[in-house]
Amino acid sequence: MTRQDSFLDAFFGPKSIALIGVTTRFGFGAGLPRFMIKSGMRDKLYLVNPKIKEMEGLPVYRSVKEIPNTIDLACILVPASAVGGVLNECLEKGIKAVIVMSAGFAETGDDGRAMQEKLVRMARSAGARLLGPNCVGVVNVPGRFATCEVLLEHLQPGPISIIAQSGVFGNILLDWAPSQGIPIAKVATIGNRADIDEADLLEYLHQDPDTKVIVLYLESLQRPGHFLEVAQRTSMDKPILVYLGGETEAGRRATMSHTGSLGGSRPIEEGLLRQAGLLMATDPIELFDMARTFAFCPLPEGNRILVVTSSGSLGVMAADTLLKEGLSLPLLSEQARAHIREKAPPWMNVGNPLDVGPSGIFNHALEAALREPGIDGIIIFPIIPWAVISPVLESNPEVVAGMFVREGPMSGQPLPRPIIASVLGHPAWKDSVARFFGNKVPIVSSPQAAARSMAALYRYAKWRGVRETPAAVAHYGA
Amino acid sequence: MTRQDSFLDAFFGPKSIALIGVTTRFGFGAGLPRFMIKSGMRDKLYLVNPKIKEMEGLPVYRSVKEIPNTIDLACILVPASAVGGVLNECLEKGIKAVIVMSAGFAETGDDGRAMQEKLVRMARSAGARLLGPNCVGVVNVPGRFATCEVLLEHLQPGPISIIAQSGVFGNILLDWAPSQGIPIAKVATIGNRADIDEADLLEYLHQDPDTKVIVLYLESLQRPGHFLEVAQRTSMDKPILVYLGGETEAGRRATMSHTGSLGGSRPIEEGLLRQAGLLMATDPIELFDMARTFAFCPLPEGNRILVVTSSGSLGVMAADTLLKEGLSLPLLSEQARAHIREKAPPWMNVGNPLDVGPSGIFNHALEAALREPGIDGIIIFPIIPWAVISPVLESNPEVVAGMFVREGPMSGQPLPRPIIASVLGHPAWKDSVARFFGNKVPIVSSPQAAARSMAALYRYAKWRGVRETPAAVAHYGA
Repeated sequence: MTRQDSFLDAFFGPKSIALIGVTTRFGFGAGLPRFMIKSGMRDKLYLVNPKIKEMEGLPVYRSVKEIPNTIDLACILVPASAVGGVLNECLEKGIKAVIVMSAGFAETGDDGRAMQEKLVRMARSAGARLLGPNCVGVVNVPGRFATCEVLLEHLQPGPISIIAQSGVFGNILLDWAPSQGIPIAKVATIGNRADIDEADLLEYLHQDPDTKVIVLYLESLQRPGHFLEVAQRTSMDKPILVYLGGETEAGRRATMSHTGSLGGSRPIEEGLLRQAGLLMATDPIELFDMARTFAFCPLPEGNRILVVTSSGSLGVMAADTLLKEGLSLPLLSEQARAHIREKAPPWMNVGNPLDVGPSGIFNHALEAALREPGIDGIIIFPIIPWAVISPVLESNPEVVAGMFVREGPMSGQPLPRPIIASVLGHPAWKDSVARFFGNKVPIVSSPQAAARSMAALYRYAKWRGVRETPAAVAHYGA
Repeated sequence: MTRQDSFLDAFFGPKSIALIGVTTRFGFGAGLPRFMIKSGMRDKLYLVNPKIKEMEGLPVYRSVKEIPNTIDLACILVPASAVGGVLNECLEKGIKAVIVMSAGFAETGDDGRAMQEKLVRMARSAGARLLGPNCVGVVNVPGRFATCEVLLEHLQPGPISIIAQSGVFGNILLDWAPSQGIPIAKVATIGNRADIDEADLLEYLHQDPDTKVIVLYLESLQRPGHFLEVAQRTSMDKPILVYLGGETEAGRRATMSHTGSLGGSRPIEEGLLRQAGLLMATDPIELFDMARTFAFCPLPEGNRILVVTSSGSLGVMAADTLLKEGLSLPLLSEQARAHIREKAPPWMNVGNPLDVGPSGIFNHALEAALREPGIDGIIIFPIIPWAVISPVLESNPEVVAGMFVREGPMSGQPLPRPIIASVLGHPAWKDSVARFFGNKVPIVSSPQAAARSMAALYRYAKWRGVRETPAAVAHYGA
């Protein structure tokens, strides 16, 4: 796929940025320039406020038109009533990319909607494009650029990009991502999406070489027909995971006053999204569970799943959910079972779930399973009671994970099929396992989540009709 | 309720314990005595193994019959084939309470089932009772007693008791509980429940003054009729939360080889449990979300719920789920709305969800809501982007939570109605909020979980038909 220039390049990688409406009072107008300077953007930054002379050692200009350089991107922070005048100056300056962060537009009613529509007409007639209003703009983690109060050095660069309708929610996801092991490429918050919308951003992320998995939080679809067409095309190359808010009447009232969204019929919308290959999440936890899974795992070639566990109960939970999701739990071949039995204690049933209990042969069983051609995906619950493991962990934090998956398929090469883990119990054990697995085996929130994430992988693989692992998904980090 | 003596007292609070089958090799037989000594039980402990003379500075007896004291509780760790002989010696010694931890009984097939049935006949004919086989026994947090490898000092004593069929799962829950803010009274793992079963333990916990909320993990019902009768009686005083594993055919096969459980018809079982007042969880995360909620919250008097949030998106998620769960989202009275509007910025809609955004009036809105007679429960999402809050948090970790809920109803007295929170975003902010809320406001895993936990509270309150807050639930920690 050859990458074409896009009007969105100026939003994600501008060489010069004007922040219009910075303030000295506590709040976004004061915090944003500080954060951008802290994240290394001082040289690109031009501050504007007619009442201030200097801030953080930078000159503050009376108007954007007084800035002695060309400006690639303008971020407008002034109150809603002043946005029109400021936008006009930006357009006169020749700026083609504008983020309106200010709230007080369509989400407040018809007058606000008329105001934001006027802004779009102004921008478009000058050949400029507008993101927002009522948003916090964009983040580009590998590009070290952000228009919101986020510490770029805390974010792990990686293959997941996010389009969030809500600014605050986008910020929450960014705050949450490091602790959740979510490696991020780009984030865009679209707010009231008066001009640029989710379909524009989807097209952009489809072409973006850093993005392998796309996560969407939307409260409605702006241009459903166009969006579905773009989404279906994008899904053929990159999985799209969606949480759609505003499902019920109360939810819709809330979205209306949140981002001015007017939704369509939800069951129909969801059906259309599924047909276009999109994967639906039921809450933010599942959205992140699925994002990790799609970012780290190759696609399964079929629906035959093996569960390897040291806790019988967690195995039962996964088995229940896998079957409800339409996946199957075949037995291993007689040969593989005999191989596992060689090291198994007499009380161990070599079934599926394969409950190894405290036998100590987790790794032996997992390696046998990875060699088995009749298994398309593996779910693992590598659990050891903390009391048993903590003395060992103290003396050598890394060796312990090796007790489970020491060598062979888990080291070196990309995995031949998806492995999804869930690790309940002591947080330090989970951390130790996570360090060992790295970006190879996603750790999701529960046994049920592991089964649902595997089901989502399988549904997507089936939708794409591919039998081979898509190179982009399997090898991004290998 | 007057507390009667129970045969289970000897299991949860024995004055002397024999551990039969301790070993010097790495494993349970070596770890358990070490942990019991570390947790302060040295003086009560008598170790038995004919091949060892001394362990951890304690004498090791050749047989339980050689112990020079009476023994309240025996824990048997020897391999399955040797359990019968050891049990016989325990009974000859006059021991009335026996935990068989060894695996290799009904979970391995018919022969194993016959073996465990023989153990029960032996015990019963000697007037003794038997817990297990295939379990890790019990934990009594306030009583500082445990028969499994758990560090008692890490567990927060509190009102939640757990009955888990699986030993490993019981251990996982105990490892997990401290990081999840789950204060625990008693835990029992019942394994194959050849003699003592979930109904026996439910009766015991019903009478137990430390227990206010009961959590069950079961793979089937042992004596469904009797269990339901006990459960319904218990539910009238204490909420019972259940996760039932082994729902599908594959799950049932797994439970059979896990704890030898043979299940009945699942939809019928679930319906009967609901009729008996039990609350069903769909995964372990929800089980803990509900446990915190029932432990910390008074019961709501009706289904009118207000959502107060600083993130519009999370408000939309909660509203959607509340409505699907059959709860309602009324507007506040005109008077209360006017009171909130006095401090609200012009862009703020005073609706339900009540999205305060970055207005800084979260506390003002919450206080108004708590005074409102037309609201039965409140869900809050006190979210601030980390970049905004971290500088303040550094200088004063405790004051920050006070930005939301500074004074008034949140300090001092028990809350007049349930408040449930969810805090996504940076873990340090969640920790700060959690410290402030203590055991007054549960923090659950997601906005959807907050809505479902509130719905469970309401369903339980309706089932009990109470209009007043049950004293035991509301005041345990006040």
